Amino acid sequence: MLLYDCSTAPSPRRVRIFMAEKSIDIPVKQVDLRNKEQLSDEYRAINPQCDVPFLVLDDGTGIGEVEAVCRYLEDAFPETPLMGTTAKEKGFISMWNHRIEMGGLMAIAEVLRNSSPAFKDRALPGPDNRTQIPELAERGRQRIVDFFQTLDTQLEKTPYIAGEKYSFADITAQVTVDFAAWIKVVIQDSQTHLKKWHDEISARPSAK
Amino acid sequence: MLLYDCSTAPSPRRVRIFMAEKSIDIPVKQVDLRNKEQLSDEYRAINPQCDVPFLVLDDGTGIGEVEAVCRYLEDAFPETPLMGTTAKEKGFISMWNHRIEMGGLMAIAEVLRNSSPAFKDRALPGPDNRTQIPELAERGRQRIVDFFQTLDTQLEKTPYIAGEKYSFADITAQVTVDFAAWIKVVIQDSQTHLKKWHDEISARPSAK
Repeated sequence: MLLYDCSTAPSPRRVRIFMAEKSIDIPVKQVDLRNKEQLSDEYRAINPQCDVPFLVLDDGTGIGEVEAVCRYLEDAFPETPLMGTTAKEKGFISMWNHRIEMGGLMAIAEVLRNSSPAFKDRALPGPDNRTQIPELAERGRQRIVDFFQTLDTQLEKTPYIAGEKYSFADITAQVTVDFAAWIKVVIQDSQTHLKKWHDEISARPSAK
Repeated sequence: MLLYDCSTAPSPRRVRIFMAEKSIDIPVKQVDLRNKEQLSDEYRAINPQCDVPFLVLDDGTGIGEVEAVCRYLEDAFPETPLMGTTAKEKGFISMWNHRIEMGGLMAIAEVLRNSSPAFKDRALPGPDNRTQIPELAERGRQRIVDFFQTLDTQLEKTPYIAGEKYSFADITAQVTVDFAAWIKVVIQDSQTHLKKWHDEISARPSAK
């Protein structure tokens, strides 16, 4: 098994935290996104989707997309389940993970990819170039500010995002909050539940 | 258990097909999206996210987001598994489902929600209004045209989207292809693999 990773990027960080929490140790190879190595002929031959994380199994099968990589790992390394053990937990964790991806991670990516000169013509990840849309950057900023409030409201009800137990949804939320700092959106003083949760999550060994 | 549904909308259709394939029969209540019933005070109290599908369990827990609802049902009704039985199948189906959601369903929604007068100020689903961005509609149209080619290329390799077996990924792709007709994007004559698969999928009893 070999995991293609980029140590500075938020998406593969979700997999790295997931692996650390489950004490999974597999070989990792860095792909230098800053120098667009993901678009090189060599990497494109490995993963035509041109993104990371990308997990190559021993039989050559490649699995991309964060949730899919984690789902493979959850089943292959069942100890310390992070995606739920009952139908209700599985559904609830999946729901929150999806909401955080759409309302959080995607909103931040919209800001960054549609405003930063570093992402000129790279408004979406993947093999094809896409022109930046400045209005999307503005909309993304409003969405992520709203979403921090959604997280704070949820964390008023339960200690972790999807209930009483730490889960994959906390990992996605943690990476979202840390990624938002790239576009200078931070936890507000009034968001005390989000702040408390974030302090606790950041103190876990997997945060490093 | 009660499923909030809208018989004319693509997202809950994925859950309906999933249930039909697994012979799951649970009570269903219609929410009239055309008349914005999802934004009513009554529905907002049930599901503050203001969308469908939304599954309310007997203990009152609500589960939203298509994949999460299906994940709950997959575990609660394990017969006829559609999300994979091995780690590799689970990962592969999840990967394709995610890709089809992002590259297919989302692209079509971008076109529709950012161009149709019916979606004025409703450029995104959810409780908050968002202004339409016409450039996003244009980009979405190009993306979905490209994505049909991605599906055709994949279906040249395997009879179903995620391999030898029919799965949740086929359901997501089926709803994507049918939803694309709303914006007049259809399978091209040259996309023979996609055409063959779509004919076969559409003939299954669950397609109705």
